[in-house]
Parts: sequence; structure tokens; C-alpha cells
Amino acid sequence: MMMSRGYTRLASSMFTMVSPRFFSTAATRGVLSNDMVKVPAVGLGVRCRSSMAAIAGGDKEQEKKQAVGGDGGGSAKDDKEIVSYWGLDPTKVSKEDGSPWKWTCFRPWDTYQADLSIDLKKHHAPVTVLDKMAYWTVKSLRWPTDLFFQRRYGCRAMMLETVAAVPGMVGGMLLHCKSLRRFERSGGWIKALLEEAENERMHLMTFMEVSDPKWYERALVFAVQGVFFNAYFLGYIISPKFAHRVVGYLEEEAIHSYTEFLKELDNGNIENVPAPPIAIDYWRLPPNSTLRDVVLAVRADEAHHRDVNHFASDIHYQGRQLKEAPAPLGYH
Amino acid sequence: MMMSRGYTRLASSMFTMVSPRFFSTAATRGVLSNDMVKVPAVGLGVRCRSSMAAIAGGDKEQEKKQAVGGDGGGSAKDDKEIVSYWGLDPTKVSKEDGSPWKWTCFRPWDTYQADLSIDLKKHHAPVTVLDKMAYWTVKSLRWPTDLFFQRRYGCRAMMLETVAAVPGMVGGMLLHCKSLRRFERSGGWIKALLEEAENERMHLMTFMEVSDPKWYERALVFAVQGVFFNAYFLGYIISPKFAHRVVGYLEEEAIHSYTEFLKELDNGNIENVPAPPIAIDYWRLPPNSTLRDVVLAVRADEAHHRDVNHFASDIHYQGRQLKEAPAPLGYH
Repeated sequence: MMMSRGYTRLASSMFTMVSPRFFSTAATRGVLSNDMVKVPAVGLGVRCRSSMAAIAGGDKEQEKKQAVGGDGGGSAKDDKEIVSYWGLDPTKVSKEDGSPWKWTCFRPWDTYQADLSIDLKKHHAPVTVLDKMAYWTVKSLRWPTDLFFQRRYGCRAMMLETVAAVPGMVGGMLLHCKSLRRFERSGGWIKALLEEAENERMHLMTFMEVSDPKWYERALVFAVQGVFFNAYFLGYIISPKFAHRVVGYLEEEAIHSYTEFLKELDNGNIENVPAPPIAIDYWRLPPNSTLRDVVLAVRADEAHHRDVNHFASDIHYQGRQLKEAPAPLGYH
Repeated sequence: MMMSRGYTRLASSMFTMVSPRFFSTAATRGVLSNDMVKVPAVGLGVRCRSSMAAIAGGDKEQEKKQAVGGDGGGSAKDDKEIVSYWGLDPTKVSKEDGSPWKWTCFRPWDTYQADLSIDLKKHHAPVTVLDKMAYWTVKSLRWPTDLFFQRRYGCRAMMLETVAAVPGMVGGMLLHCKSLRRFERSGGWIKALLEEAENERMHLMTFMEVSDPKWYERALVFAVQGVFFNAYFLGYIISPKFAHRVVGYLEEEAIHSYTEFLKELDNGNIENVPAPPIAIDYWRLPPNSTLRDVVLAVRADEAHHRDVNHFASDIHYQGRQLKEAPAPLGYH
């Protein structure tokens, strides 16, 4: 059962590889034909030139069509041609009920049912100086956040996810480069941290559907990401144990915020709108689910990330490296 | 069938969540007990302190054991305790034949059978100025590489994979941050590029088994990664279409190198040793496979990456963004 996805991949890749071998020779002719080399390499010409490679044969008629096809209008056509040349036809993916899969930003095998039974109260009491630094760093960030968002939890959630998706990516990237530099295995931690980043990004993709960011909020995200990405990057290089602990505490705060969000939904201050379709597919929610069900799933995800990051920090505290302990892959 | 992995994830997460709820209350008591706060926050003490949180109850006897358990020798025990607290017991994963899965750096659902039928000769003829720049950048890098490695293709492959695994990670990371900043979907390209990076890293994990890097080679990798990571990072920010084209051409060169590697294996200049176990599991090779089978699989992978990156560059050439075309996910 575990291996089925691999087989599916194999099947789909076999499928996508049918066309290119059929087109390639012709395509090479197309590319090498004088007609194409003559075209000046500027403006729209440039934008179309590359996709010339996709045209089967150096046929002038075809080329003319191409020349006007570089803009948005003809892009679908260009795309089809490129696809046929590079053999990257979108793989046919369908849901369990056989209906076509409509999301390109995630696939059926990325979906799951949130484990709502996770202990939300679990807390790592800061004992060491470093832990206390991490704890108070997060606590001090809490104050301006409360001040800025007040009780607008929908907006708050959306904004915070733009930050929450950064640490996993930075950590995964740094471990990836370390694994390459040192010729050593990862223990699965690269994937585990990237999974966390992608999961947080999916939270954002979901909340985007129920809350619309204003121009000054977009500007704020720009600034905050610039600062936070670099700060976390440096922090992770200097002390991974501190960095993971900070994320652990950030997630504890996130759980608190989502609990407040739920209270606001329950007492009617925030309308419990229907769950966006993207959320229903990502967490495999029933069709009639509401925003409340989404927030419950997201909160459970944050609790899982809390565990993973405190666990990672604990491993470092033992003077060991992450790769020495198997990573919690697919832990949601 | 497609969804089965999700279900497996669900099952495994349910499994791993059994213990923590059982331990959590006791653990909190343990953390807050005076016994533990008293211990000075230095040296081994510090390294053990964090995992104190994992001890069920503030029991002194337990604490003593912990105090000597911070080093490598006792780490397995500490690990078990942390695991029991954070509920991250390694999930039980087994192969199709029921035997336990022995790799932590990749899982059964990451494995596949390489599509050896892919067209290895496919080439994107450089027509625009930018394409020619990309082409000659790669060609000029070829010369010193040939000079350095001569015909030591095993070593060459290992070293080049440390570089080949960088662009996918940089591109994926930049698209991830862009998606967060702009509140927009990725079209699956973040995952597609990260898949490429991980696949290249697995090539390295494989070649490590058959070739042992010397100290000056390790030093070289350090230097090259430092330069290349930053160069590609800047290049991707300035012109993604150029960056992807460069990778497309790098992969075309890689295909050439692996073809040379195969020739050396066939004429006996390089011994065709048995395939390392990690390669047999990753590409689902028959048990009696050899290095030649591994090189064939790796070369096919590079051809797939060539297609993905030329395709990505072509999309940009049309003045469109990657997210506008569905990403070739799981394309091997």
C-alpha cells in the first residue's frame, strides 16, 4: 500500500513520456532552421523565440502563428507546444470518486485528515538560559501582534502564516546544503522541515480564501519576511537548538491564537462561513464543513509542528545532530 | 490508489499520537519540580536539562540516570524519553515484502523506477542572446571540470551532484517565499523544484557509497557550494529564465558525462561493482544490479531535470509566470 504512490508516479511518467520522443527530431529541425535564427532577438520576438524550439518543423506558417502567440492570448497554445516538445503534459490526476483533481498547488497524495486528538496543552517549560531567551523572544513578539490585529483573527491567521512558513524552509535548505557539503545523510529531517513549510503555506492558501489582505498588510508582510527570513537564517546557523525552540514556542502561541479564533467563531463575533473548497480537499473535510472545522485542523497542524520543533531542539540539547534521530516524516 | 499514502500518513500519525497524551501531565510535573530547576545550567547539565522535560515525574533516581545519559552512550535512552514525551516514535515502515524499511533519509513512497526510455539527445538550441549566454556559461565550466577530473567519472559524478542539488533548492525556496509574500499559489512548482533538489541529493548519497572523497575534494565542494549557491541565488532573482536555462544546459552536460561514465564501465576502465543497497531501494533495482544500472538510472533522472528546467525557462520566455502552467510533479 505504501508503495502505491511510487507506482502511480511511474505510471504517470510513462504516460507523459509518450509524446516527446515523437516530436523531438522534428523539433530539432525546427530549431536549427535559418528562418528562426534570422528573427531579431528583441521584444516580442525574444519572448517567442524560445518556444520556437517547441514547434515541430521550421514551417513558416507555424512560425507566424507563433510570433503573435507570445502574449497572454496565445499562451495556452504556446504552452501546449512546449509541453509536447518537453514531454511535460500535465499528468491526469483524479480524486477517489473519479472526478478530475482541480488543484495544481497540491496533489491528492499531499492531503490528509488532521489528527484533532493531539494534546494542545503540551508545553516545554523553559529551564535553560537559551530556552528562556527563546521563550521571551516569542512572548515579546506577541505584544505588538495583539496590538496590531486586536481581535481580527481571520486576518491575523493569514498574516502569521506568511511568517510561519519560513522557518521550515530555511532549516530544510540549510540541512540540505550541509548534507551536500559534508557528504552525509539527512535522517529525513530535510524533508520533515520542508513538509512543515509547505503545510504552513497551505494554511495561508486557505485563509487567503476567507480574508483579503489590504495594501498596507501586503507591505507589512514584505518587510516582515525580509527581516524574519534573514534573522532566522542567521539564528539557525549560530544555534539550531535555539532556532527550533523559538519555533516550538511560536507554535504554542499559534495554538493559543487559533483557540481564541474558535471562541470568536462560537460567540458569533466572526461569521462561521462555509469552508473554502481548497481546505475541504486538503484536509479531506466533509462537503458541508465550515471555517470552524478548518481552524480546528490548522490548530492541530500547529500542535504537530510544536512537537517536531521542540523534539529537534531536544536532540541538539543532547549534543547530537538531527540526522542521528529518524525524522518524523508525514507527521500531521 | 492515489490517496493511499495520505491514509497511511493518517494511520501512522494516529499511531504516534498514542503515547504523548499519556505522558504529558506527568512530564509537566517533572519540568516544574524544584529538583530540576536547581541543576546548574552549564556543561553536561545543560545538555541534559532539555530532555528533562521528557522525564515522567521529577523522580531523583530518574534524574541521576539522565545526568549521565547526555553523552553519546546514553543518547538512545534520552531519545526514547524525548520521543515518548513529544509523541514522535519513528513510524513503522516496511517494504512490499514486509521486511522493515532501513532508510531514514528517504521513504518507500519516494522510490520509483527510472524511465530509461527518455530521449537523451533532446537539446534546446540556443537562439536568443540570453540562451547563448547560458549555453556558453555551462560550456566554459566544462573545461576546468574535465581538466580536474580527467576520466575519474565516479569521483566526478559524486562531486558534480553536490552542485546539481543546489539550483532546485534555491529555486524552490525563492518561489516559496514569493508565494507567501504575494499571497499567490505556486502551481506546484515549489514542490517540483524541491523534488529535483532531493533527487540530485539522492544521487550524491548513492555515489558516496562507491567513491570516497579526499580532503581536498571536500574542501573544493565547500568553496564551490559557497560560490555557486550565491551566484545561482542572485541569478534566479535577476532572471529566472536565464537560471533555468543554465540548469537545462548543465543537465545536458551531465547526460554527456554519464554516457562517458558508461563507456568507461563497458571497456573495463572502471570496475562495474555491485550497486549499493541504497540505490537498489531508491530506484527499485533488481538485487543483482550493478553500478552500470545505477548510472543508467541517474542519467535518465538528469534528462528529466533537463526537460523540467528548459520547460520552466520557456514559460518565462513567453512572459508568463511558472504558476500559470501546472508543474511536472513526480516527473522522473
